Amino acid sequence: MNAPIGIFDSGVGGLTVAREIMRQLPGESLVYFGDTARVPYGSKSKNTVCKYSRQIVNFLMTKQVKAIVIACNTASALAVGEIREAVEVPVIDVVEPGAHMAAASTKNKSIGILGTESTIKSGIYEKYLHQLDSEITVVSKACPLFVPLVEEGLLEDRVTEDIVGRYLHEMKEYEIDALVLGCTHYPLLRGVIGREVGEKVKLVNPAYETAKSLKELLREQEILAPPESPVQYEYYVSDGVEKFISFADSVLPCHVEKTTVVDIESY
Amino acid sequence: MNAPIGIFDSGVGGLTVAREIMRQLPGESLVYFGDTARVPYGSKSKNTVCKYSRQIVNFLMTKQVKAIVIACNTASALAVGEIREAVEVPVIDVVEPGAHMAAASTKNKSIGILGTESTIKSGIYEKYLHQLDSEITVVSKACPLFVPLVEEGLLEDRVTEDIVGRYLHEMKEYEIDALVLGCTHYPLLRGVIGREVGEKVKLVNPAYETAKSLKELLREQEILAPPESPVQYEYYVSDGVEKFISFADSVLPCHVEKTTVVDIESY
Repeated sequence: MNAPIGIFDSGVGGLTVAREIMRQLPGESLVYFGDTARVPYGSKSKNTVCKYSRQIVNFLMTKQVKAIVIACNTASALAVGEIREAVEVPVIDVVEPGAHMAAASTKNKSIGILGTESTIKSGIYEKYLHQLDSEITVVSKACPLFVPLVEEGLLEDRVTEDIVGRYLHEMKEYEIDALVLGCTHYPLLRGVIGREVGEKVKLVNPAYETAKSLKELLREQEILAPPESPVQYEYYVSDGVEKFISFADSVLPCHVEKTTVVDIESY
Repeated sequence: MNAPIGIFDSGVGGLTVAREIMRQLPGESLVYFGDTARVPYGSKSKNTVCKYSRQIVNFLMTKQVKAIVIACNTASALAVGEIREAVEVPVIDVVEPGAHMAAASTKNKSIGILGTESTIKSGIYEKYLHQLDSEITVVSKACPLFVPLVEEGLLEDRVTEDIVGRYLHEMKEYEIDALVLGCTHYPLLRGVIGREVGEKVKLVNPAYETAKSLKELLREQEILAPPESPVQYEYYVSDGVEKFISFADSVLPCHVEKTTVVDIESY
């Protein structure tokens, strides 16, 4: 089916999911929307995140997308149900594939979850993990300083090490052997986080798992793009085109030529 | 004049300005709006901050306010001109009073400014300071990690000391003797900042100066509340009532009983 896949995030972080989709599904066209005017979602209420997500999905549907990927953990945690009810195309979120991978990786049946305040409060990872295996112990921790640290470029820094140490301190008491990096920015801290928890803990990056799930879904529903159809990537944001392009160019394998500002509140 | 003063901020930080107004003008009623759904403004473009500010001012005008206080440095920096054009009531911002105080305090004619990315980029403090005295040297620095550190409660912490040290490092090369804490959250870090720059540097808190300017303005325009008129404080937010009340109770001298959510995008 020669229609694009719609993908959205509260800002730029979802581009890491877009990158994985470009890698694993190089024949598919994408329409990306980043809600850079209203970022971040991680500290917002369910009502507000649902409202913003619905507006974005309304916008994506005007682009005749054949599937929607919620590339934001917080929007996945709080709004996936509402979005599935609102549209007829298949919807993939980042939480479920991440939870599946974590459940498949753990031997100790003890899994750690790192995420934003709203993702952790939602209890969504616990819900999915306990549906998969009720005996799994889930230890979750909100890490509100991780996104600002990443955005300040402190990926390898003594301050980041200090903060990672504090957030993961309690987690060390449980013998977790899988740790979900449950926010699109967190994989950028995988170096520091990996050293803190040690080699025996598998770090789960939901972006990778999400692209895999999307590929399966498109195959099952027989809506993969026909071979050799032209591939197009379109980018839309609600604010700050230059900042977006500069981040996108550092993440994506191809240069972003054009990004369009959308008045998202009118959708 | 027995009408309330409208005051707004991108979130909860402006409550420190509201507190100063309550202290210095105990006879005045206030209507406070915190844009907690779209916080923070400090990384957003002028267009977006102007649009959000206009919506808020439209809302405040429905409350028949007699004056408007822009309690957010970023909105002051980017939107004060547009707001003054849009309404007929007097508008006070936090930047101008802060700049005046800094200019009055410096002997070396060297002033430091700390603020959000958008406030610093706007160059607004430089503009006001150079209008007051073209010989003043202004050294400004964006401090994007300060707000998240304050919101994580790390007011006195080795990580905060480390970050403060880095942001203020360059500033030490200039002999500044006044330093503007140009974001409503920053006065909460005055302990760490004060130790870093030393006793000889006067820390300017725009909240205090803004309340003083407001008092003068109400007197000049003869619109002070008549003595013994009833005082009412009303609070409105765009998201997260409970979080707002909990922060408000920690800042304000009186308990906040009721806060109402407003669909601000519809204004």
